[in-house]
Amino acid sequence: MKLSILGCYSATPRTLNNTTSQVLEINNHMFLIDCGEGTQVQLRKHRIKFNRIKHIFISHLHGDHFFGLVGLVSTFRLLTREADLHIYGPKGIKEVVTLQMKLADSWTNYKLIFHELTSKESELIFEDDKVEVHTIPLNHRIYTNGYLFKEKEGPRKLKIHAVENAHINVAYYRKLTQGFDVENEHGILIKNDTVTEPGPSPKSYAFCSDTMYKEDIVPIIENTTVLYHESTFLNQHAHLAVKTKHSTAREAALIAQKAKVETLILGHYSTRYDSLEVFKDEAEEVFANVELAKDGKTFEF
Amino acid sequence: MKLSILGCYSATPRTLNNTTSQVLEINNHMFLIDCGEGTQVQLRKHRIKFNRIKHIFISHLHGDHFFGLVGLVSTFRLLTREADLHIYGPKGIKEVVTLQMKLADSWTNYKLIFHELTSKESELIFEDDKVEVHTIPLNHRIYTNGYLFKEKEGPRKLKIHAVENAHINVAYYRKLTQGFDVENEHGILIKNDTVTEPGPSPKSYAFCSDTMYKEDIVPIIENTTVLYHESTFLNQHAHLAVKTKHSTAREAALIAQKAKVETLILGHYSTRYDSLEVFKDEAEEVFANVELAKDGKTFEF
Repeated sequence: MKLSILGCYSATPRTLNNTTSQVLEINNHMFLIDCGEGTQVQLRKHRIKFNRIKHIFISHLHGDHFFGLVGLVSTFRLLTREADLHIYGPKGIKEVVTLQMKLADSWTNYKLIFHELTSKESELIFEDDKVEVHTIPLNHRIYTNGYLFKEKEGPRKLKIHAVENAHINVAYYRKLTQGFDVENEHGILIKNDTVTEPGPSPKSYAFCSDTMYKEDIVPIIENTTVLYHESTFLNQHAHLAVKTKHSTAREAALIAQKAKVETLILGHYSTRYDSLEVFKDEAEEVFANVELAKDGKTFEF
Repeated sequence: MKLSILGCYSATPRTLNNTTSQVLEINNHMFLIDCGEGTQVQLRKHRIKFNRIKHIFISHLHGDHFFGLVGLVSTFRLLTREADLHIYGPKGIKEVVTLQMKLADSWTNYKLIFHELTSKESELIFEDDKVEVHTIPLNHRIYTNGYLFKEKEGPRKLKIHAVENAHINVAYYRKLTQGFDVENEHGILIKNDTVTEPGPSPKSYAFCSDTMYKEDIVPIIENTTVLYHESTFLNQHAHLAVKTKHSTAREAALIAQKAKVETLILGHYSTRYDSLEVFKDEAEEVFANVELAKDGKTFEF
């Protein structure tokens, strides 16, 4: 699982601060999460192949999370993309993208599939044989979802000596990795867990931005491998966090602690602060394993 | 008159190529012309004070000329702008900006005044005591206007010895600069042009992008000081210019020659070419005074 931070600042893009966008590589998928202005240039800087992006997840329709979307859709068209593109986001996202295509008289040749979200409950919105994606309803000034990306349980691993000693025909090995009990060469039923062990534990990533402190999300993101939680402010500006429906670094850490995640990544910083280290210090008073998102930084888990 | 090129490439923004946007300083106005994605960051790089921009002129609603507009409007709001902002552009521009403000539930505190254009004839769209702005109807895939910015005739300059010898009271000097005849201290009428001379000749700037070769614009832009004319292609790709309704460098030069402008600036280059110098070479076969727009370049006239 690899996470590339294209931008992690709030409000407005600046010369050295990009607004929210990130790419999650998980089980050969390349998911684009949020798409602030300038995302397409950030993708080029990261040398991420545009064609590998087939799914875009937009948290909410504030500009710093989606003003780069229509430009990306348009650039895909100019590069004669053919692959379908799925866009997940709040109701209204289809209208705003299609209005701009209409005004430009520039329709995509590739198929653009909008999945507009309206539910206030967590939903399963994408699933294949390896990954599933759920929404995480957040509490912000407008309708907002975070997204939970979960690897599915992979194939079980053969305990090779046990399998050989049990005299199981090689033809059944695949069934064993799928968790089935099988008959051996002497017609005896072999229980699966006597000859296999679980594969590597599935990983998961929860993206939560923008939101004020919301404990309701804890059951949804419990035991997640990595939680990205916005921390627009430090605790000294907790009143601003309440007013603007954002979180402090301390609150992000509280959510991480309650949800027993492995790693917390902070991001969506206000540009009022000179240093990011103070965000880490504040969060670490509550939760041990804290990382700082930075534009251009890549995390591997 | 000062022109700052924020971006001068066609189609899509890239790491080193910005799409169309430029700032024209003329008689203390700061006019923003077109607003491709990333324009707000380019403005910051140029250290152009956001508050000085009170008028934005959008040529047409293709993304490489206006996808940065809503982000700029939104950033002005976040920076608690108070001054009115006038936006000139094709019909539809108001709907697309206001739809995004509605979806974000983020309305500007400052006044946003849209001037939607629909005419196929050149129109006077802005005028004060020092400057006027006219549209230049262009021929592109969708409804498009160039813009002509013209300084008005400034005050006449006193020929100081002649004024003194004519025994004119100092109180009348201002009337003289305004072109009036005045009586001298002996009650004799002094003809204005015997004691004054014209002030510096008014300058003008014509922005023509995007358009295919269109001779109809020549009478509108005749004798312009500076003409920016798009040259997306070289003559070797003239068939593409016709197909996509763009111009070649040679065609831009032909327009400059016929309109007898002083200087031609080329821009809106396709990124297919390795060097810009070939654009200059091609245009100079037709017209002598050719400059190349480059991102970050400033011209003073």
